[in-house]
Parts: sequence; structure tokens; C-alpha cells
Amino acid sequence: MTIAQAGRALRERRISSVELTRYLLDQIGRLNPEINAFLTVTGDLALDQARRADAGLRAGADCGPLHGIPIALKDVFCTRGIRTTAGAVQLSENVPDYDAAVTERLSAAGSVMLGKTGMHEFAYGITSNNPHYGAVRNPWNPACIPGGSSGGSGAAVASGLAFAALGTDTGGSIRVPASFCGTVGVKPTFGLVSRFGTLPLGFTLDHVGPLARTVRDAALVLDAISGYDPRDPATRRRRKEALCPPPSVSLSELCIGLPANYFFDRARKAVKEAVVRAASLAESLGARVTTVTVPDMEGLTAVHRLILLPEASAVIGKFHQRRGELGADVRALYEQGRLVSAVDYIDAQRLRTEFRRQFARLFESIDVLLTPATLFSAPRIGQDTVDVDGVPEDVRLMTTASVRAINVLGYPALSMPCGLDPGGMPLGLQAIARPFDERLLLRVAAALEDAGISAIGRAPLCAPTPFSAQN
Amino acid sequence: MTIAQAGRALRERRISSVELTRYLLDQIGRLNPEINAFLTVTGDLALDQARRADAGLRAGADCGPLHGIPIALKDVFCTRGIRTTAGAVQLSENVPDYDAAVTERLSAAGSVMLGKTGMHEFAYGITSNNPHYGAVRNPWNPACIPGGSSGGSGAAVASGLAFAALGTDTGGSIRVPASFCGTVGVKPTFGLVSRFGTLPLGFTLDHVGPLARTVRDAALVLDAISGYDPRDPATRRRRKEALCPPPSVSLSELCIGLPANYFFDRARKAVKEAVVRAASLAESLGARVTTVTVPDMEGLTAVHRLILLPEASAVIGKFHQRRGELGADVRALYEQGRLVSAVDYIDAQRLRTEFRRQFARLFESIDVLLTPATLFSAPRIGQDTVDVDGVPEDVRLMTTASVRAINVLGYPALSMPCGLDPGGMPLGLQAIARPFDERLLLRVAAALEDAGISAIGRAPLCAPTPFSAQN
Repeated sequence: MTIAQAGRALRERRISSVELTRYLLDQIGRLNPEINAFLTVTGDLALDQARRADAGLRAGADCGPLHGIPIALKDVFCTRGIRTTAGAVQLSENVPDYDAAVTERLSAAGSVMLGKTGMHEFAYGITSNNPHYGAVRNPWNPACIPGGSSGGSGAAVASGLAFAALGTDTGGSIRVPASFCGTVGVKPTFGLVSRFGTLPLGFTLDHVGPLARTVRDAALVLDAISGYDPRDPATRRRRKEALCPPPSVSLSELCIGLPANYFFDRARKAVKEAVVRAASLAESLGARVTTVTVPDMEGLTAVHRLILLPEASAVIGKFHQRRGELGADVRALYEQGRLVSAVDYIDAQRLRTEFRRQFARLFESIDVLLTPATLFSAPRIGQDTVDVDGVPEDVRLMTTASVRAINVLGYPALSMPCGLDPGGMPLGLQAIARPFDERLLLRVAAALEDAGISAIGRAPLCAPTPFSAQN
Repeated sequence: MTIAQAGRALRERRISSVELTRYLLDQIGRLNPEINAFLTVTGDLALDQARRADAGLRAGADCGPLHGIPIALKDVFCTRGIRTTAGAVQLSENVPDYDAAVTERLSAAGSVMLGKTGMHEFAYGITSNNPHYGAVRNPWNPACIPGGSSGGSGAAVASGLAFAALGTDTGGSIRVPASFCGTVGVKPTFGLVSRFGTLPLGFTLDHVGPLARTVRDAALVLDAISGYDPRDPATRRRRKEALCPPPSVSLSELCIGLPANYFFDRARKAVKEAVVRAASLAESLGARVTTVTVPDMEGLTAVHRLILLPEASAVIGKFHQRRGELGADVRALYEQGRLVSAVDYIDAQRLRTEFRRQFARLFESIDVLLTPATLFSAPRIGQDTVDVDGVPEDVRLMTTASVRAINVLGYPALSMPCGLDPGGMPLGLQAIARPFDERLLLRVAAALEDAGISAIGRAPLCAPTPFSAQN
């Protein structure tokens, strides 16, 4: 059931928010012990919110599309009175006395918060194999990672435990779990969504966005959380436009780019084929498809590294005395970041400006660039390397090879399901658009979805339920 | 003669741009050997531009306020075909093949470029005692510094060699020479004026602005150079508003703040008295004057230091192989900047956001803050320390004590003459306003000027001419 369908059912009183919420809380009780998608379940609060939502519906209040809809939040968004850990042991007792901007906005939209989802420690990694709160598991195969850092959000949505979930994306942390879990995940333009009250990782790279089962569901959530907020200086005063694509959209007059270099070089065969299939589908829907040479992605990825390493160390440095309690991977990154010189960081920021110019030129000739979201499907939990052309490569670096550089640009990008690999695990298609062109990006994705690009062969193993992606 | 007066004389054909330009080129020929305000004089180009301006006037073209007005540019703005050194020996042969955005805009406004003014090496200091191109001298006393880094611009305007000059301000480099030379100098809001084609010093601190003999002259130049430019990502798309204050302005309904802490602590008596006198004058013009506690200026100044040091080292690092040719002061700063860690730099940037919040709160209760621009008048050339309460303090740090922190905020600030010290040297009043509130800032300054705050006892020694500030 999509958010739109559930919303209609709620408004037509065919179902109540309390019923929806109870059902999902039951499912969480049943599946979460295995999947570990939720770090904290806020059952009482959720039922309270659901009752209020139902009262609003009964009173004939003017209810928006998220009214009464149960949603989950990554445990990085401050929630008043509810602990917010960022997956870190140093924050295990952190109970904020205020809500993040997105928590406020979802609440104002009448949605119901089911709980806080698990994640990679400090959002600084892509496995969500958390040393303090346990590994989050992939609903398609519990032996595999869900991706990260928003792994709990991906797993919750994919296993039908929430209609949508919020995540953060500093180097792929929304798009990677979306790709590995077979959901839609949107990293909006830098500055579209307020980060006030969101525990940071990289100040100039962090983005907040939704994971959901369909493009239109993701658009509804993004619509609700986006907009200017004086408490986040990165947000801009812009005319607010409705982001949700209309029922049937054409792609004529649009130009879709397929990368000639970098993105396919080390991708698995099934991934390449899926992306090319998506481009053909776009062409059959009226788009012009062209092959383009993209700027130096290796360079842009190096810029990401030089910027994120010290930014994250500045954040984690607050807990320097307790650095011994960090997981080995985060600890290593933390120490590396402390060694970066300010001059190198500033030079990376200067290169960033140059790369933005180069991409702006590229996007003069195309509207959307289609690439793999990840070069392969979800690796197994504990797997450190992945085989690429016979060479074992670091799982973290290879997993983010297609996505992390986009955070440097701040361009909006999403991952959406585009088929299964031979092992039956989901594959993700990445679509990238110009800054603040979310409307166009979502329109293209919705058209592909309507045309069946994400028609996935089977339901995740853990969620053969009436509320799963399969309706 | 002011720009407005000269413009009227030009439009009424009482004088020609060629006559104005010839007169100023003659004056430059006469005075520059002593003052060293100009590093490059572009006489032929200036006369060409003046002839074109006159032809436009004869043809009855729609001429703006700068049409035919001779202006000088700090040697940091790229000028096509004319060498642009930034006061650095490493750039002594640098002849750009393009114009800076402000060069373009002044040219489009019909102004005449007299030449490029001298400056502190790489704009990285406040004496303008340049080891490669010679010391720029203060027209009020050639044994004194004109301030810096835009020292040549201040000296040129003060000695009547140009109607106005552009400068850059990274930590006071427009306001200090304005204060020491008895001119008006405006550092606009960060992002109001494009820095495209301006040789950088500190990417997040550099501002471009005018030095001129009156507030309205400065406003006319600022008006011409401000506005969105896609080539400088810091500029914003904003509705353009006329900045030049009307003939007689009232200050009623405005609240002027006087600082209770920091700014007067180490200022000379004459400076304190001059600023208090300015506040009284504002009160007599209808403003409400209130004493306010300003946020931790020592902390904000430290933030400036931590940000500028590595940003400047990133710029100068391009010439690392030739670092031995730097002047001793710039060389020391360059080496210091290379030692700053990225984490410290990022922490300083985070503190910057917090300070912006604190100042935003302060400016909820006031419209303009009045402070000294410099705590004393111009020191002598070669003077390394200045006596403060019997303690010798570093000239550079003390000279910028009132101004450099404002660059961290990005707030608009100006220096304007507010009297002479007992030695007969000019003193500067600093006025600071909210971001993008230049209109208000200039209105307050114009009212003070109209009321005689800058009535200076005598002309600079070198410029007792019909085109000097004294009309």
C-alpha cells in the first residue's frame, strides 16, 4: 500500500491511523528482532499521534497527504524526550529537549512516528553493522548488509515496517541503502531540507531526505520536509513548488545522459544492463538519450574524501576522550581526518567550485544523468572486500563509488529499484539532476516507475504482508 | 569636487572627461613619485576611455553617474592587457587576458580607469610598505603609512588623484586605509559584489568595495559594481536597489548602538571622543542611541585568524617554490598558515556560524553599530609596534582590532572621517549594519557627513588642489 493509497483509505474512513499504526507496530514486534531496523520503537507515542490524527480526520480537518501515515526516523534526527544516538555509544544517553526541523515538519504534517531506525556508527560508513547496537540486516537476505549509513531506514521501508523513513546522505547514505534494499531514496539538493537538529557528520556534505517504496511516496515526504529554515543557514528562501509528479508523465523534450566513462567501468554486468534498460525505457517514453563524458569522477571522489575526513573528525572530536570506544573502522577514519591540513582541505573546497562549474556545463546539454547507484548488490555482513575484475577492493570505497562524489556537487540524486541481480538481490538506478530541479528528477523517476522499471520479481523474504511493496 | 558635481559638470558640458582625466594624470605625474599611490598608470587607455565618454556625452547618450569619471583600481583586479601584480613579485609579469567583474562593470558604467594602485604584498598586511614596489605613503604625512592592504587606493583618493578607487577588504583592507587617509571606505556585505577576476587572499573573507571622498560618492561606485554574477557563487540573486542616499535624510526611527565592551578598551582618547561625538550627532538627527554589549570580539578575531591563515596559505601556496621572495611578514604568515589543521579550521567555521547567530540577535535591537575604525591614526612607515596603555603591541594586530572580525560575519561596514587626532592625522568612524542593509548604512553615514562629522581641519599636505576633498 502506498502513502497515497493509505491516505485515501484514511480520508474515506476505510481504515484508521490507529489501525495502520497498530498493524505496523505488530509487524515491528514480529520482524525487528531479526532485521534490527529499529533502534528505538516509540509505540505509545505513535498510538497517541495516530489517535490525534484520527480525531482530526473525524473532525473533518484539512488533512495533507501524510496525515495519519506512520513513518520512521533515522536515529540521527533529534526527537524531544526520545533518545537520539547517531548509532554512537557516546550518545547512548542523549535525550534531546528539542525536535529537529524535519521532526517538527513531519509532526506538523500529521504523520505518526513509529520510532528511530538503526544506522552505521556516527553515520560514518555504509554497512550499518553497528558495534554497539548490532548489525542491521537486509530484508531480502538477512545475511547481507542493508547498506548505510541509513541502513535501518532502508530495511524498515523494504520490509514493510514503515511507509517511509528519513535518512541522511553525506556520501551515499540514503542512496546506498535504497539500492541494496530495493527502495526509493532521495538525496535532495544541498539546502533544500533544513538540517537543524540533525546530528552532523560533514557540514558541507550532509543532506536529509526520504526513503520510501515508490517515487511518489518519496516525493510526498520530501515535499513535507523541504523549505527555508533560518536555523539552517544553508537553506534558501525559494518559492515552494509541489514536488509530487502527476499521475502520468511524458518524458518528451527531456534529454537523458548516459555516462561514457567511469560509472560502468567497474560495475557488475547485471547493473550495467539494468541502467541501459532504464535509458531505453526513458527513450521509449519520449526522452532523447545521449552518451556524455562526465568530468573526472576519481578527482571529485578524492575531493569528497579530503573534505569529509576532517569535517567528520571535527564532529567526532567532541568525544576525543572516548575515541577508544569507536568501532575500528570509524576510529581509523577519525584519526586520518585529524591529520589533514587546513590548506589541503581549503584546496579541496576550491576544486569543488571548479567541479561544480564543469558539471554545470555538462548539465547544459542534459536534464538527468542515469548511472548505477551501486556497482553491485548488497554484500554479506562482515565482508570487507568485494571482487572487482578479479581484484579485491575495499567494500566501503567501492560501494560509494557512484554516489559519494555527488554530495560534493550538492546536486539532487535518487536511487530507485531497477531489477534484481542473478542472486535475486535488488539493484539501484541513480538519477541525478540540476540543483533544485527535484521536480524534474522525480518526474523522470515516476515515469520510469510507471513504465515498470522497478517491477521486482518477488517480495523481500521478511515482508510478505498486505502492507508490503507488492500491495 | 565630488563625483556628483563632476558628473553634473560633464553633462552640462562645463568640463570634458578628457580635461578631468588630463588634469588627474598631470597630478599623478606630479605627486605619485612621492606618494607612490599608483603602481601602474594607464594614461593612454584613460584618455581613450575619456574621449569615448565625451563622445557619448556629445551624442546625448543616456549617461549614468560614473560616466566620464576617472577612477583607480587596486592592483588586485584583473585588467585585460594590463599587468596585475597583487603587489607580489611572483606576479610582476602577470598580464591577464580578461577583466575582473568589477573592471567590466566600471567600464560599462563609462568610467575612466587611471591605473592600478599599490598595495600590501598579496593584500596580506596593513602597512602597504611593499618590499618589491616600494612603500605607499600617506598624503597627510608621507612619513606615515596609508594603511592597507588597499593603501594605494586610500592615498590616491585622499590626495585627489582619483575620484574614487576600488579596494578589497579581507580583514580591514578597505576600512583601514580609509581611516588612516581620511576617506570613506565601504566593505559591503559578503556576496554583494562579484569577486570574479579578483586575486584572492581569503576565499570566505574577501570583499570588494570602494574608497571615495564622500559617502554619496562611495555609494555611487558601490551601486555600479554590485549585483549577481554567476561567475562568483557567493553573489546572490537579489532585487537591485539604488544605494545612493537622497539629499537630506533623517535618522528618526533608527536605533544606533554604541559598544559597551571591547571597542573602546584600547582606543586612543581622541578616537573615543570622535565616535561618541558621532553618536551624539546621530541623536541630534533623530536617532535613538543605546549602549550595547557586543559578543566576544576577541573570540571572533581569533576565528578570523584561524580562517584566514590557511586560506591565504592555500592561495600563496601556488608560489611555494618562490616563497623565499616573500617579504618577511608575509612569509611568516604563510608558514604559520600551513601548520593549521583542517579540524581547527572547520571548528573556526562552525564558531563563525554561532557568532553570526549572536550578532543577528544583537542587530535585532539596533540598526547600526558605531565603533572606531582604527584605534589610532596612521603609524609611521617601518613602525612595528604601537604603544597601548604603555605596552608595545603589534601594529598589524592592533590596527585591525576593530575591523577584521566583521569580515567573519560578512556584515556591511564602512569607515568615514570623523575628525583629526592631536597630531593632525585623520581618524575613522566605523559603522556596521545588518547583511544587505547597505542602503540603511549609507543613509546613516550620509546624514552624519551632511551634519559635518567629517569636517576635517585641513587638506592633506600633498593635494591642495581644486579637485581635492575641500572643493
